[in-house]
Amino acid sequence: MFLRNYWYIAAMPHEIGRTPLQRHILNEAIVFFRKEDGTPVAMADACPHRSMPLSQGKLIGDTLQCAYHGLEFDTQGRCIKISGQANVPPRCRVRTYPLAEKWRWIWLWMGDPEAADPAEIPDFHWNDDPEWTPTGGHFYIECNYNLLVDNLLDLSHETFVHPTTIGNAAVAETPVRTESDEAEVRVLRQINGQPAPPLYVKLKDFTGDIDRTQNITWTPPTNIVIESRSMPSGSNDPDMVLEYRVLNGITPATDRTTHHFWATPRNFAPEEAVTEAFHEGSVRAFSEDVAVLEHQQAMIEQQAASTGAPPRWIDINADRGGLLARSAVKRLFELEQAGQA
Amino acid sequence: MFLRNYWYIAAMPHEIGRTPLQRHILNEAIVFFRKEDGTPVAMADACPHRSMPLSQGKLIGDTLQCAYHGLEFDTQGRCIKISGQANVPPRCRVRTYPLAEKWRWIWLWMGDPEAADPAEIPDFHWNDDPEWTPTGGHFYIECNYNLLVDNLLDLSHETFVHPTTIGNAAVAETPVRTESDEAEVRVLRQINGQPAPPLYVKLKDFTGDIDRTQNITWTPPTNIVIESRSMPSGSNDPDMVLEYRVLNGITPATDRTTHHFWATPRNFAPEEAVTEAFHEGSVRAFSEDVAVLEHQQAMIEQQAASTGAPPRWIDINADRGGLLARSAVKRLFELEQAGQA
Amino acid sequence: MFLRNYWYIAAMPHEIGRTPLQRHILNEAIVFFRKEDGTPVAMADACPHRSMPLSQGKLIGDTLQCAYHGLEFDTQGRCIKISGQANVPPRCRVRTYPLAEKWRWIWLWMGDPEAADPAEIPDFHWNDDPEWTPTGGHFYIECNYNLLVDNLLDLSHETFVHPTTIGNAAVAETPVRTESDEAEVRVLRQINGQPAPPLYVKLKDFTGDIDRTQNITWTPPTNIVIESRSMPSGSNDPDMVLEYRVLNGITPATDRTTHHFWATPRNFAPEEAVTEAFHEGSVRAFSEDVAVLEHQQAMIEQQAASTGAPPRWIDINADRGGLLARSAVKRLFELEQAGQA
Repeated sequence: MFLRNYWYIAAMPHEIGRTPLQRHILNEAIVFFRKEDGTPVAMADACPHRSMPLSQGKLIGDTLQCAYHGLEFDTQGRCIKISGQANVPPRCRVRTYPLAEKWRWIWLWMGDPEAADPAEIPDFHWNDDPEWTPTGGHFYIECNYNLLVDNLLDLSHETFVHPTTIGNAAVAETPVRTESDEAEVRVLRQINGQPAPPLYVKLKDFTGDIDRTQNITWTPPTNIVIESRSMPSGSNDPDMVLEYRVLNGITPATDRTTHHFWATPRNFAPEEAVTEAFHEGSVRAFSEDVAVLEHQQAMIEQQAASTGAPPRWIDINADRGGLLARSAVKRLFELEQAGQA
Repeated sequence: MFLRNYWYIAAMPHEIGRTPLQRHILNEAIVFFRKEDGTPVAMADACPHRSMPLSQGKLIGDTLQCAYHGLEFDTQGRCIKISGQANVPPRCRVRTYPLAEKWRWIWLWMGDPEAADPAEIPDFHWNDDPEWTPTGGHFYIECNYNLLVDNLLDLSHETFVHPTTIGNAAVAETPVRTESDEAEVRVLRQINGQPAPPLYVKLKDFTGDIDRTQNITWTPPTNIVIESRSMPSGSNDPDMVLEYRVLNGITPATDRTTHHFWATPRNFAPEEAVTEAFHEGSVRAFSEDVAVLEHQQAMIEQQAASTGAPPRWIDINADRGGLLARSAVKRLFELEQAGQA
Repeated sequence: MFLRNYWYIAAMPHEIGRTPLQRHILNEAIVFFRKEDGTPVAMADACPHRSMPLSQGKLIGDTLQCAYHGLEFDTQGRCIKISGQANVPPRCRVRTYPLAEKWRWIWLWMGDPEAADPAEIPDFHWNDDPEWTPTGGHFYIECNYNLLVDNLLDLSHETFVHPTTIGNAAVAETPVRTESDEAEVRVLRQINGQPAPPLYVKLKDFTGDIDRTQNITWTPPTNIVIESRSMPSGSNDPDMVLEYRVLNGITPATDRTTHHFWATPRNFAPEEAVTEAFHEGSVRAFSEDVAVLEHQQAMIEQQAASTGAPPRWIDINADRGGLLARSAVKRLFELEQAGQA
């Protein structure tokens, strides 16, 4: 159950170049490359002739040549040359996918190409804004994408999963306020007068208690922006504010694997050394999530195999954001299916 | 098809401690640990909240804390704490399993907890008796448990699989007597005036022919005691008797994997050096069985995949014990199913 | 869908000896060995008693002894000894398969043994003819056998897959003539006045353009002979002719794996150094095919998993030979099935 009429992050800009790249997205194999003028291109990776992966082929100018029998495809997916014969059947073509490069990511549209409007790309501007200093990366995780959405909409896990970086007891003990409307789900947490977690002490030399805000916004299908702002309790010194965003583009690869494109732009201390500390802390924390998510996926599969059905879960208060997001996706999926019918 | 209202060996005592241990038994993932007072505990390994394996969690006193969202469970499987909320839903609990520590093993009851009676643990007293010197271990074998039961109820294979330790021509050439009643299957072999196999010569310096007794007792579901006694033919010297037991706790892990808990207690020469020789000889012989059983399982799966049905086998006389045990399990399984209906 | 009443190459002669060899053919596990007089034997690899692979057993003279319980089988597949019992049930036997050693290969008949006639072994005489100097080998490829048949019936791929050995632009650009009748499919290509590909220059020091003939003959189920002959354009010098055959025995191992037995006998320059150059060039080119075929198989499986159906392909002119061969196999398969009904 994947929503299709949405933009998904497919790659970081430097990942796509003149060597074709295969990536699985929504259970489809897709090949990515750049034209000579730098424009990114995405098309179905299977040659329509005999299913050779086009990502094994090579670029001749803007033409992608299949590695097996040399069929050549233009960037519209049309076959324009078959060696040894004069005519090319018009139905010899591969599907292409609209792409857009925005906020220092490559976005892919998996739905009706007519409906692809770059204006609908979610607002991740902090990753491409002179006021903010970004860093980011890509994880390929062996779990269903919903598990990662759940993870990012319930940060109470920071206390238990990330105690050496961004988590401490204050996070899980502070309840959240959850709001939603048609367009988004918001999970809001305000922690006041509590100790700072280890990474914050390292980044900002906090010596006493802090006030910490975690505001999460989910928009469909899988975009999550976490607004994080901390400062010493009672302080008004703008230099002591630690503010950053956690931008998450969650792209289902298959039913049981997920791409996680992340960035943690901040609006202070743009020095390279601070960027390195941010990068290292982020990678460490996300790696802890990867371990949890893959253990969770393995157990879900074990339970399903053993009982013949997916496990039935007990919900807790902190799950409200994740449950609202799942409901919204279900509703939007039904709308999409109805629209196609 | 697993019998449930029986005790199965789940672990050797030293395997279970203050670090939670995951083990699959009868297709279920179970977490084991010890309370502060040393009592062993077993519960379903999936957190009822979101299926995180509890075996990834940590013990706080006698409480097991989930590694993901910190839910805490007491040794009755009841959730007693959910961070950030005052109430814990009563149905937030995991199944626990009765355990008993006996004969230097941890026994697990997979059936109706009301029916768990430690008095029904099979008599493996030789493994915890001052008159006997034990050694033992654990194999995890990629085969269905029935193949290991068959293996231990037909020792004619010693001639072909274990020629460097406990097997020689005399074993396979001497027919067995097979007996059974409701409660057990017995396979009895008496070899008289035949050469000793290599390991026996090593252990006891036999120079001439020996008389050798192999009496096997199977009790449901999968307990096998082999009584082995050898002495020089015609001798009455009690110092020349080589007597030991092979105790086998066979615990299905999944449909195609099996735990083999074994011990070979002896009633002579308690010195450490002899224990080492016994241990080494036992591990070598059982490792030969593991290789055979995994080849056999692979071929059965290949035949089933190729023909769409399990292979049909030709029985020989030596199979009678194994066939009787399989029949008894089938009968008992039908009784168990009827009892539940 | 495998044709059975045909000879398939099962092994190169040196692969079969006094150590039993397991090989999967048409989804069946088969054990091969040689009798003391050198005659090769093939039988089902599963012991009829308990499915132990007989290929794990050992030869006692011409008798194969099972590694588990020591059952002994003669070369007719009859069990002739069961330890510990006087009688052997007559139905305790394994299927044997007719074998023939011809053209320096071991041929296996998978169908009705009564119908096995070595006269039907295809003409691969070039591999065992004093006028020709052979070299050859065996690849185990993770692809359905049809993909390899397609590969060898459409050599236009040489241009794209083998540009450093036998391919250049002339191959793909020169159309083929395809002929077929009940008994075979022929694909004929004549290239005149074109540059020689790299391996040919290396083997024959061609300095100018050449005329090159590629005549392919497929016979059912999977035999392919490629007749290759090249000479300088306009030359009549017999010493400047480069002529060889590519003999291909394609034997399905499973639905998704294939044995490729190949040889490239030539009728010139029998020196060992030239044989080495032929062998090295052949292995390099076939290894390039293996990479292509395994990528192709992986994509076909990905497409089938993603859409629930095999991909539908667009055919090009060069596919005609492969399509005719597939049609012929389908027709012959229906005849075989009808004959059995």
